[in-house]
Amino acid sequence: MRDDDVVRLRAETPGCAEVVHLNNAGSALPPAPVTDAVIDYLRTESVLGGYEAADAAADRLEAVYASLGRLLNAGVDDIALTDNATRSWQAVFYALRLGPGDKILTCRSEYAGNAIAYLQSGATVEVVGDDETGQLDVADLERRIDDRVKLISINHVPTQGGLVNPAEEVGAVAERAGIPFLLDACQSAGQLDLDVTRLRCDALSGTGRKYLRGPRGTGFLYVHPRLRARLEPAMLDLHSAAWTEPGKYEILDSARRFEVWERNIAATLGLGVAVDYALAIGLPAIEERLTGLAARLRGLLSGIDGVSLHDQGKRQCGIVTFSVAGVPADKIKTRLSNAKINTSIVHRSSAQYDFTARNLQETVRASVHYYNTDDELRLLAEEVERIKQE
Amino acid sequence: MRDDDVVRLRAETPGCAEVVHLNNAGSALPPAPVTDAVIDYLRTESVLGGYEAADAAADRLEAVYASLGRLLNAGVDDIALTDNATRSWQAVFYALRLGPGDKILTCRSEYAGNAIAYLQSGATVEVVGDDETGQLDVADLERRIDDRVKLISINHVPTQGGLVNPAEEVGAVAERAGIPFLLDACQSAGQLDLDVTRLRCDALSGTGRKYLRGPRGTGFLYVHPRLRARLEPAMLDLHSAAWTEPGKYEILDSARRFEVWERNIAATLGLGVAVDYALAIGLPAIEERLTGLAARLRGLLSGIDGVSLHDQGKRQCGIVTFSVAGVPADKIKTRLSNAKINTSIVHRSSAQYDFTARNLQETVRASVHYYNTDDELRLLAEEVERIKQE
Repeated sequence: MRDDDVVRLRAETPGCAEVVHLNNAGSALPPAPVTDAVIDYLRTESVLGGYEAADAAADRLEAVYASLGRLLNAGVDDIALTDNATRSWQAVFYALRLGPGDKILTCRSEYAGNAIAYLQSGATVEVVGDDETGQLDVADLERRIDDRVKLISINHVPTQGGLVNPAEEVGAVAERAGIPFLLDACQSAGQLDLDVTRLRCDALSGTGRKYLRGPRGTGFLYVHPRLRARLEPAMLDLHSAAWTEPGKYEILDSARRFEVWERNIAATLGLGVAVDYALAIGLPAIEERLTGLAARLRGLLSGIDGVSLHDQGKRQCGIVTFSVAGVPADKIKTRLSNAKINTSIVHRSSAQYDFTARNLQETVRASVHYYNTDDELRLLAEEVERIKQE
Repeated sequence: MRDDDVVRLRAETPGCAEVVHLNNAGSALPPAPVTDAVIDYLRTESVLGGYEAADAAADRLEAVYASLGRLLNAGVDDIALTDNATRSWQAVFYALRLGPGDKILTCRSEYAGNAIAYLQSGATVEVVGDDETGQLDVADLERRIDDRVKLISINHVPTQGGLVNPAEEVGAVAERAGIPFLLDACQSAGQLDLDVTRLRCDALSGTGRKYLRGPRGTGFLYVHPRLRARLEPAMLDLHSAAWTEPGKYEILDSARRFEVWERNIAATLGLGVAVDYALAIGLPAIEERLTGLAARLRGLLSGIDGVSLHDQGKRQCGIVTFSVAGVPADKIKTRLSNAKINTSIVHRSSAQYDFTARNLQETVRASVHYYNTDDELRLLAEEVERIKQE
């Protein structure tokens, strides 16, 4: 990405003039075309009526599936639209109907939301070890496979650090073993170039608001036809199934069997614009810019005495996590916020397997996007230096 | 409601200048304060960041629960916010974990979405008969109660007509029998004065976009503490439960155990404004105005030769359904739409129990709101007369 590209992309992002936004793994700043699309549609709804506006926008709505298909290299029928990544992930996980006697293999970096669902299911959860770089140890995964394993389920990028798990290799293992592979791409969609054929995942869940820069309350799901055909959704409505006779119903064939009828159409259209916006820039260019910025930020922070970096993995992404000796994370976040620098905190309750293993309680998270600049990274580093010296 | 009130309420509704909106049971026209609140918040998000804007709006978000509590005469801890009425309803229904051997009692007017879920559960579904007015026959309900009945689940107002089911009497029967009573208030919230203590329901689901005039993609749920305490949600995430140790989680005490963490905050705030707007007018005044308009519309339509009205019930609401001999419903809807009159069609697939019993395939639905006028109703009637005479 050239400097003048960054200037243009920043100019198209109203928030760049207001804040140093390093909370992109929370919710990124949307580009103006996304916000405008949502607002324009809300205005249209308010004068035409909600259903009438949706009828008029039917082609644009359908195009959102195609855009997501392009993003993931998936077919339109393999995509479902949801209200958030959690709904996407839950739709597949709970449809698997795992229980006592079944085994789930997951990664140490697994996210709280997913881990709680594993525990609720009553299945045995085995946490695959990390290799020496801190990424999922693929050899350990392979060793743990037996007849009881009914699911391999990991995140691509965790909430608590710059790690990129070796999803392609995990996919290859899962495919050889014939075990469904559910990939949580909540933090990777929009920052890494995703291709479901290369990832060999049976299902992939994602969100709009993070690296894709879409609206809050939007999510999507990819489900491979081979998994979909054998998965009855855990919950049904009159969109995912048709009521054909008083005592009969028929479930949709496509991935839309995991949707519900009602949705926020404005936000959905905004998601489509966000995906198209990312595709126009190009995911490889986004990834290169992002990872470069994050690497430079790690360099800046590591030069400050008393700062510890916590990012793991052989391959790293745009999420940077750190702590400052003797300074609580919330003090750092608040002070940065006062300087109009947005960051966030990751607590152990979001990542029990990982933070327990690493004996961490909390870290500050500064997650970069392509619209961040080296000047912004320096501002962060200077502010951290100042807090530390007090 | 006085004439000048209606003039003011129409002036605050941009859509009233553009269309004759008689699709309020689909999605109503929002008042300007609702649309403005959503748009203002989206603009704030785009310059502050999604999480940062939510932090700044935390009090307003919390106030949405209080507003819904006032609407339903419920405690703040008994309210959950969801993405739509389906999610609200499913959260309770699927948490009941009914299956073969259990019995569900429902009404003939039951909605497709709910009926499909009953069928999926494998429980026995018994459809309570209608009385001579076409409302649920409370005596028949009472006769059907036995030890196998694990749920009484009905809609308050169906999608396919002006019927108001005798929910208070059903609630009294359920309470005496000690059977959970789930009330689908998707079509009644915002048009009828609801009070969960009077309705004696254990759970009530509702939507924002219909009679409450809120944004699409918003829903809410009331759950009585006595039901909530024994219901583990069918799905969990890191908001409905906390990951306290690697192998442990704790489910929230309040009704928020039925929520997921991520939501469209802008739409949620819009819902709060919509509820406050309705409360400021007063639900009794809204109901009186609405039911009066609907009764007058039925009068106008019944005077047209060849028009059949299909609304049932002792007590009727703002939904008016009709057909015209020899004219398909979609032709009527399209012709009305060309005249800028918004209506909708109800198909048998939405109401199999009811339409099969009444031998109906489809009806045109003209659902009024308080902002409609008698002039608008006459426009509809004139257009129907014209279509019929062709």
